[in-house]
This record gives sequence, structure tokens and C-alpha cells, in this order.
Amino acid sequence: MKRYTTTWLNDTLVNLFMEAGASQEVSEVTSNILIEGDLLGHHTHGVKLANGYFQDLKSGHAKGDHKLLTSKIISPVAELFDGNFILGPYLVQKALENSASSARKHGIGIVTIKRSHHIACLAAYLQSYVDQNLVPIIMTSDPAVKSVAPFGGITPVYTPNPIAMGIPSREQPIIMDVSMSTVTNGSVAKANLQNEMLSHPVILTNTGKTSVNPADFFSDPQGSILPLGGVEFGHKGFAMGLMVEALTSALGGFGRKDEPTGWGASVTVLVIDPSLFSGTESFLNETDTLVKACLESRSINPQSPVRMPGQSGLKCRRNYLEEGVLLPRDVVDELKKAIDNSSLKGCMDG
Amino acid sequence: MKRYTTTWLNDTLVNLFMEAGASQEVSEVTSNILIEGDLLGHHTHGVKLANGYFQDLKSGHAKGDHKLLTSKIISPVAELFDGNFILGPYLVQKALENSASSARKHGIGIVTIKRSHHIACLAAYLQSYVDQNLVPIIMTSDPAVKSVAPFGGITPVYTPNPIAMGIPSREQPIIMDVSMSTVTNGSVAKANLQNEMLSHPVILTNTGKTSVNPADFFSDPQGSILPLGGVEFGHKGFAMGLMVEALTSALGGFGRKDEPTGWGASVTVLVIDPSLFSGTESFLNETDTLVKACLESRSINPQSPVRMPGQSGLKCRRNYLEEGVLLPRDVVDELKKAIDNSSLKGCMDG
Repeated sequence: MKRYTTTWLNDTLVNLFMEAGASQEVSEVTSNILIEGDLLGHHTHGVKLANGYFQDLKSGHAKGDHKLLTSKIISPVAELFDGNFILGPYLVQKALENSASSARKHGIGIVTIKRSHHIACLAAYLQSYVDQNLVPIIMTSDPAVKSVAPFGGITPVYTPNPIAMGIPSREQPIIMDVSMSTVTNGSVAKANLQNEMLSHPVILTNTGKTSVNPADFFSDPQGSILPLGGVEFGHKGFAMGLMVEALTSALGGFGRKDEPTGWGASVTVLVIDPSLFSGTESFLNETDTLVKACLESRSINPQSPVRMPGQSGLKCRRNYLEEGVLLPRDVVDELKKAIDNSSLKGCMDG
Repeated sequence: MKRYTTTWLNDTLVNLFMEAGASQEVSEVTSNILIEGDLLGHHTHGVKLANGYFQDLKSGHAKGDHKLLTSKIISPVAELFDGNFILGPYLVQKALENSASSARKHGIGIVTIKRSHHIACLAAYLQSYVDQNLVPIIMTSDPAVKSVAPFGGITPVYTPNPIAMGIPSREQPIIMDVSMSTVTNGSVAKANLQNEMLSHPVILTNTGKTSVNPADFFSDPQGSILPLGGVEFGHKGFAMGLMVEALTSALGGFGRKDEPTGWGASVTVLVIDPSLFSGTESFLNETDTLVKACLESRSINPQSPVRMPGQSGLKCRRNYLEEGVLLPRDVVDELKKAIDNSSLKGCMDG
């Protein structure tokens, strides 16, 4: 494991994306969001993705020209983006900016994005809005992938469908980013690649048995991932997964009915400005009370005090910003692949 | 078990609430929502609540005069209600109406309600909006109650915090209503009263052990209910529970910091109009594709095909509307208590 400065990582990624044809604007936002993912410790959804983005830009499946984004303005608070498969971080960041601007004037803003390319780590987008005492929400589904089965079913139909949200609090800001399935596609793929069993029986085999073996997901016919709540309470995760499908693909008008292939995402972004509701002070007083009570809840394991969602990520971020970002071997290998296919070849050697 | 017509139930409830001082408007909406709860089969959150509402109206904790509602209009799409503890169904219905009206013009509408009285069954509000091809969302927390512990903690801090949403679909409309905890306060209380064990170990004792015994929740110090996801994935249910706390109590400005007592709720209602986004046809084509794929997913148990959220409730509703509402013994007993304390005394005898 080696540490990398965010400056070096950023220069490298921006150069890579621009070499593959992306505009400076798209390259910079995408680079920043990927690095933010690693800063928060989400190494499966950070710089590791750069090579895939680089390849998709070169093949033409991902677009890098921000001028390809078209928008239907529905009202002063609502917009529908056709992302035309521009790299997702650019689209999501733009959607958040527009929603935040609506929220500051009208209390709330919503932007739905159809035909986005992959959007990386949802948590990576939140902090700058939380720092402004706004409440950002992001949800996403991938209509090209079927990995989660409906509760009681075997055939996979939809995706883990994460919901991410930032909650301002003076005590400890909350950065949540959770999928509505037990585990993510990424963690199943990673365990399978490393020949490791999963910690919990969250795979449903193609005959309807639970399993810890990720290979049971990659069987033919395919297995599936259990919805959040598992075999007992999976009807709840199933319902929440449907909620995300409806608010993303259905609202945007591009989804499973269109049978897309390749990396992509349907996304909906909401921003709420508490200052226009009961006021920022009142909002923060309430979240402070809540966070304090959670942190003071007696812990089951005295060695592991209760932590708020995002707390360890934000701690990791502070450390990485001071000491450099510690990238795992698989991330470095993947980044090196992109570099070796570019004019930067050799810059990671030695 | 005996069947009751919705007409008889409605007349009885409206009379009870009006006798206890509620206006006709509040009485009618509340009666309708309670009966809708039973129609959908949610007997713990239907007519059974009428006696409690009746008592709270008489004691003055619940208000029945709709003119006590005050509203701060934030923008053409956002409003903050101070419910002044008017019976919740009136407030939620009003919030949905206003949000729907905003959504039809601007794509989305949001109303946050602080200081509501109890709001009954969330699913009961959804169908009429779904029938108009709108997407209604309701979430709620109860700042007077602490029953769910943060993930990893023992001391309970917050409530099950349900999220309900209606999703229009020609194939099968979706009516979802799920708490962000494994089980609800109501089901734990009911099992405890009937000296029954819970089906799953979802109680955390006051020493941090899981248990199926509801008595372990009512111990001193109190036990708690595990967040959705349980001991393995409860960090996800915890995060979602915090999301609901922030979007209800914190946004409304009245919550745990105010240490309220008695029946109450913080509520946020959102309505989205898909016709202004990608269009109703496109939305329904996508939800139809999704619903069809779910219903066609091969089922684990061949005797139990996959059902969509709300599907059995809507079937139950059709049956009850034709044959009369079948009320369980405990519901009838509770209704009789209210009747026997009113001028309607005797009307349920024989």
C-alpha cells in the first residue's frame, strides 16, 4: 500500500479523462468525485473506476462533452436531464447545483437524470452541501442490471438501488449512503474474484436457497442478492427498492422497458433548504439532540461506541487529506492499467 | 368476528368524534382514514384507534377544530403546518391535497407538519392519489417515543419511522408502507398483551442480547427494537431512520429537543406528478415493466407467488367493500369502549 496526494491523483485523472476526449469541466468534476470516494474509504467506488471510465470514453459509450447534456425545465423547482451518457459525476454534481439553487429560493429542488453514465460513490457528493446547511438526497438505479430478486422470488429483477443523504448537525454531520439490498453488486463481485465467502448468507441461489458463496450469484441461471431485511423482513427492502426504481427510471422515462446495456444509471437528486422551513437553528438544534442521544446510547460492545453514518468515513477523510490517500493494491493496479494505455505510461513505475 | 358496513362504521365514528368536540370536517376525514386502514387489513391502525382519539379529544390533548391549523407558506411548492395537535388524519389529508395541487403545477409539492396528533395508517391515504397517477410519499416519526436503538447501541433513541409511498401502475398499483425498524411498536405491544413470542429475535434486551420475547422490550430499563437489517445490516435501517427523523421533526422544528409527551407525530408529505417529468404514459410503461417482471419472478415457494407491496391489502379492500369489514375481537372491544362512554351507548349490543 502506498500513499498518494490528492493533487497527484487529480492531475493524473484529469489528464486521463481529457486524453480520452472529455472536456475539462467533466474531467475535473469526475476526478474530484472519484478521489472523494477514496477519501471517505469507499475504495470500490473511487479511483478504481477511472480505468473503466477511461475505456468507456474511448469506446464512445461514455460521453465526455458537457455540452451534450440537455435539460427540460419543468418549473422553478424541477428539471429533467437527458444525460446522454455523459460521465455521471458531472451530471449529478450539476443536478445538485441546480436543485440547491431551487431549494434556496423555494425550499426544495428536484432534478431527475435519465441516461446517465455510472455515478460512482453517492456519499462523495454530499459534504459540500451539508457544509452549507442544506439537505441533499441522491437515489439511483441501473436499468441495465438485474441483481436483486423481489421478496419471495428467485429471478433477479432490479438493482441494489442506494439512497444517500446528508444531514447537517453541529455535533456530527451525517453522511449516509445505503443500498436497499443486503449487500451491493460490488461487494459480491469482489468476494467472488478473491474466492472469499460473504460474511452473511445474502445470496439466493437459482434454486431459492440462501448462500454465503458469491459463486452462487454468478451461476447459470443467475442467482440474486436478498433485499434489505433478508428472508425475514425482505418485503421492506423490496418496497424501498421499488420506491427508488419509481423515483429514478420511471420518473425519468428511461429504464428497464428500454432494455439498455452497458454502464449507466437513472438518478434523482433532491435538495431541501431547512432555513426556509423552521429555520437552520431549529433544524440543527433537533439534529444535535438526536445525534447526541445516539452517540450516548450505551453500546452493546463497550469497545465499539455507537457511530453515526459517515462518521468513520469523515475521520478517514481528514487523515487521508493530511497524510495522503492510502490506495489498496487492486485500486493501484486498475489505475496503472489506464495509465499504461495512455500518454502518461510509466508515470507510476518505480 | 362480525362484519360491519363502512356506512355504519363511518356514521358511528363521525358521531363519536363530533360528540367529543371535533368539527364535521375533521371527524369525517379521520373516520374515513381509520376505516381505510381496516379495509386494507391493517387492523392495529384502523378503527381500533377511535377510542384513543375519542379520549384524547375529550381530555383536550387532541384538537378537533380544523381552524386551529396554521400554515407558513414557504413557496408555491412548500408549506410548513403547525398542526396544534389536531387529529392527524385531517392534517395529513390536507397536506396531501396541498402538495398534490403544487405537484400538478410545478412537478413536486412538500408539506411538513409539526405538532400533529397521531396519524393512523399511512397506507390508508395513498390510493386516491395513485388513482390520479400521482406519486404520494408520507414519512413520520413520533418525538414523544423512544423505542428503536441506534445500530450498535442499547439505549433506545427514536421510533420505527415508517415511509409510505404510492406508485401508479396499470399492472398492479403499489401501496407501500414500511417502517425503518424490523417491527413496529404496535406489533410488539400486541404480542406482549397476548403473551405471545415474536416470530423473529428483533428485540434487544437492556443488556444487549437479542430476544423474541416482547416482555424484554417492556423491562426496566427499557429494551429496544432492532433497526431494519437487524444485527447484521442494521446500520442501513439506522441510517434510514435518521433520514426520516431529519425530514420530519428537524425540518418541522418540533421534535425530541422539545421533549413532548402524549400521542403526537412529526410528518412530511411529498407529492410528485410524473406527467410533468417524462409523462404519465412513459412512467406507467416503466412501472408496468417492473411490476410484470416482479410478478413473473419464479417464486421460492411455488404455492406463494411474488406479490407487490399492497397487493393483498387492495384485494382485502375489494372483498371488505363487497361483504362488509371483518373486524377482529380486539378492535370491536376497543370501539365498544368508546361507544359505551358516549350517547351512542348500547348501539353495539346484541
